[in-house]
Amino acid sequence: MKRIEPRSGVAFTLQKGQTLTVYDPEGQQVSDLVAYNADDVGEVISNGRTFDYEETINLGCENQLWSNRSNPMLTIVSDTAETHDFLLTPCSEATFEHFYPDKPIHRGCFGNLAEALAPYGIEPDDIPTAFNIFMNVPVDGQSGVLAVKPPTTEAGDRIEFRAEMDLIIGLTACSAYDSNGGTFKPIDYEVK
Amino acid sequence: MKRIEPRSGVAFTLQKGQTLTVYDPEGQQVSDLVAYNADDVGEVISNGRTFDYEETINLGCENQLWSNRSNPMLTIVSDTAETHDFLLTPCSEATFEHFYPDKPIHRGCFGNLAEALAPYGIEPDDIPTAFNIFMNVPVDGQSGVLAVKPPTTEAGDRIEFRAEMDLIIGLTACSAYDSNGGTFKPIDYEVK
Repeated sequence: MKRIEPRSGVAFTLQKGQTLTVYDPEGQQVSDLVAYNADDVGEVISNGRTFDYEETINLGCENQLWSNRSNPMLTIVSDTAETHDFLLTPCSEATFEHFYPDKPIHRGCFGNLAEALAPYGIEPDDIPTAFNIFMNVPVDGQSGVLAVKPPTTEAGDRIEFRAEMDLIIGLTACSAYDSNGGTFKPIDYEVK
Repeated sequence: MKRIEPRSGVAFTLQKGQTLTVYDPEGQQVSDLVAYNADDVGEVISNGRTFDYEETINLGCENQLWSNRSNPMLTIVSDTAETHDFLLTPCSEATFEHFYPDKPIHRGCFGNLAEALAPYGIEPDDIPTAFNIFMNVPVDGQSGVLAVKPPTTEAGDRIEFRAEMDLIIGLTACSAYDSNGGTFKPIDYEVK
């Protein structure tokens, strides 16, 4: 088990067939996940391709996360949280300026992912809409209006993914106020 | 006024302050739109950044389409259709194989955009989730399940965008059966 400290991020490789389990050790903490083909980082998770093939915006057990080249990258094999988001981008300096003009600017998940992924040759422009684990973003089906609410997770909630190809993973403990109920906690993860 | 023939696509430049109006001349026809910063094609429309800043997945008059670098690229200044989609990716050979295994494979909007954008140095992997003009994709707010329904547009419906920076635009007359009520019609557009 490894720990991602509050408001930070990591990157690592995940081999095809390995599983990645992401834990919310204290509850109400989001973790942004991105994934790239380890052999060609031009292939990356795509919310649009995933919504196409899974035919839902609410992803959970047995759903797959698809790439921009229409290949499955990750399969969700277990999930005690059942609430995640794939609509919104990683928080960044720009989103802090926009949403929290009175608070200190933070580089956010975007800056944390950019630093962690740079050794793999991944540029900031290559960071897509993330799969936001444990993030609670209800959408009104009539109006389309969305809201960022505190996560519904409790301490120990977890989600487990199986890699469908060799991957580079970026993973954070999210840095934004609204996404995490106003406080910043760690994220734990385990590769098997 | 220019015409995009059924199941084809074009690319062109749009200067900051110019307007682009996209017409559905016969009704029930979708048009996929993508946009890049003309000075640096690493900057591209982002559904995730747009959902972040506009706080809705249903975009219409006065909403803006934002880039991956958190800059507004296009503002919707008028809209008689009021139903568009920014969740799903352009149809492609892979989506035809997945959704229409008994029908002839078509390169789809993805292939049409790739060919039209290549002269601008834009690679297939750089084609993001498109803003799917006139596309009708209701989402169930409770379950998250989405469906691709026939467009609600009638002949002459239109949407008008103002460019907020110098842009390269990719635009199609969509090639997929379900998105267009089962038939393939042209799209008209005008730059002023």
